[in-house]
Amino acid sequence: MDSENTYSTDEGVAPAALANRQWVLASRPLGRVKLSDFALRTDAIAEPILAPGQILLRNLVFHLAPTMRNWLNDSKRSYRAAVRIGESVIGPGGGRVIRSNHPRWPVGTRLTLVSRWQDYTVLEPDKSPTPVIATPPSLSTIDALGTLGLNSLTAYVGLINVGQPKSGETVVVSAAAGSVGSMAAQIAKLLGCRVVGIAGGADKCRWLVDVCGLDAAIDYKNENVSIRLAQLCAKGIDVFFDNVGGDILHAVMENVAPHARIAVCGQISAYDSDAPAPGPRDMMRVVYQRVRIQGFVLGDFPNEIERARTDLARWIVERKIVHRVDLREGFENLPAAFLDLFRGENEGTLLVKIAEAE
Amino acid sequence: MDSENTYSTDEGVAPAALANRQWVLASRPLGRVKLSDFALRTDAIAEPILAPGQILLRNLVFHLAPTMRNWLNDSKRSYRAAVRIGESVIGPGGGRVIRSNHPRWPVGTRLTLVSRWQDYTVLEPDKSPTPVIATPPSLSTIDALGTLGLNSLTAYVGLINVGQPKSGETVVVSAAAGSVGSMAAQIAKLLGCRVVGIAGGADKCRWLVDVCGLDAAIDYKNENVSIRLAQLCAKGIDVFFDNVGGDILHAVMENVAPHARIAVCGQISAYDSDAPAPGPRDMMRVVYQRVRIQGFVLGDFPNEIERARTDLARWIVERKIVHRVDLREGFENLPAAFLDLFRGENEGTLLVKIAEAE
Repeated sequence: MDSENTYSTDEGVAPAALANRQWVLASRPLGRVKLSDFALRTDAIAEPILAPGQILLRNLVFHLAPTMRNWLNDSKRSYRAAVRIGESVIGPGGGRVIRSNHPRWPVGTRLTLVSRWQDYTVLEPDKSPTPVIATPPSLSTIDALGTLGLNSLTAYVGLINVGQPKSGETVVVSAAAGSVGSMAAQIAKLLGCRVVGIAGGADKCRWLVDVCGLDAAIDYKNENVSIRLAQLCAKGIDVFFDNVGGDILHAVMENVAPHARIAVCGQISAYDSDAPAPGPRDMMRVVYQRVRIQGFVLGDFPNEIERARTDLARWIVERKIVHRVDLREGFENLPAAFLDLFRGENEGTLLVKIAEAE
Repeated sequence: MDSENTYSTDEGVAPAALANRQWVLASRPLGRVKLSDFALRTDAIAEPILAPGQILLRNLVFHLAPTMRNWLNDSKRSYRAAVRIGESVIGPGGGRVIRSNHPRWPVGTRLTLVSRWQDYTVLEPDKSPTPVIATPPSLSTIDALGTLGLNSLTAYVGLINVGQPKSGETVVVSAAAGSVGSMAAQIAKLLGCRVVGIAGGADKCRWLVDVCGLDAAIDYKNENVSIRLAQLCAKGIDVFFDNVGGDILHAVMENVAPHARIAVCGQISAYDSDAPAPGPRDMMRVVYQRVRIQGFVLGDFPNEIERARTDLARWIVERKIVHRVDLREGFENLPAAFLDLFRGENEGTLLVKIAEAE
């Protein structure tokens, strides 16, 4: 790389046009998302002219997260840049800079970001509304997206900075066997909390207790969550890390301790439906129990990312935390893998590799 | 007063039995409260024997607050000591100690507390679940309950400690012409905020703008609150001081700015009904806008009370804040006055004097 020439490429000669495969939104999904909502298109990108500050990224791996379902709704419900019909799908991913007109992001830099389902993305990192994070040399792109990726970082800042659990408190996590939830639950254990996970099915519950070391797990598909929470959290729930919302949020509200904190990370229960996820049924309970309900996104905590990655990497190495990655392959398989998320058919953080990643 | 003898009375000789009038709960109200839900009873209290730490209080003035309606529901919905059938009604009031077996609360001490609708109350201040606050010599009992009373203190801590508005931010207050709301709105103005009040009727709205100095007021009985909020708060609502809940909370949620804070003080819209007040309709809005929704009660801020009273008293003297007190008379009129609260027929903090207060 030539540090004096900020516009650089990794090829010796001007390249031919790039074939850019894209999964675009073919129709706006109503209720459960289906394969026909997506369409594969290939555009030819001529030699791209990058404006100052821009980079050209080769996308290598995509991370499929439930919250992406919200970005497929019309903008009135999604609040964030919604995907328009005919546009490529927005989703977190990791890639490598292959052309650059930005001095701090030279060719060869690996990074994670909120990208799009396409081979190549032109990006202006300084103006990105979502974090663009350089991948340290010690990390593979797959680890940067999986074990130490957005989901793990979200669990870390949501639990620690928003939930603020103290040692000895009772923490409940919904979708606890999921990519975010399993990390939040295990971090809470490391902080000295009593932790109860809520998940669907006996296998997930067993994994939470036997492998992740949670104090208890509730199988929401086969148990009455409110009754089980009352039994397992006799002194009330101090912190709830909420990935699901809906009926599970309501069951938690019936069992909150005074001064409970609810870190609202997501509301999976409503993503794949036409109706939004409603909040607490009785706001006077929020008053009398002095509950703090707080929504958050990772992007608000840029200064926590380094500390979070350092802590998470150490915990993984010391085998204090386990993290499962479900790695798939092939650009053509992106929509089918995405549908698996809503059928609970992934086991851990769902990644799809579309090109060779180191 | 004899400081060496902690058990003291203000009468030279042992008194005769005291006639203790009480308004008791005759039936549990369903929906709107009615006069027949209350019954007047008179008990004779024989010379009371006070245990160590106890005091006997002559109640002088009661403060009628909408939240008392919640305490008349069964305990499943009220969470706080609910009034049982046949028990006297729980409500804030001010009185004077007339017998004492507590060294720090001698005879003659005036105080405000959560009392009961009766002439006399035996109390153990150190074990009270709600604050028992001595009335400073400079304050009348009526001012200690009204202008500088629980409602004003609640407005102060709720706005400043929970809402945490910064100068230049936009603050919205519901029930803004009420006893709590008018104080919260005016304090926000003093902190340099742009303040929009929501109230019912043109007269209240005019009072908020012309007398209280708010930037704007919305008449929820005659205007579309969500549309008006969008017009008046183009950059979004930073802080919402919520006394009402229900539809007005939903209209605010449609117009919150990123990182908005909602201080949940009460939910008047549901007090006089059989259904609780629901929370936000779409919790993903809480996530994307990173909203903090926080319930609070005054009792959590014991260390703020002196500062709050000092600030409030100064602002009143300097004519920077106005506070209206609607003073009624007569123990027999307590239930009728209480009903007026839910018809909006009080003008300011509603007090009922039941005996001569200095």
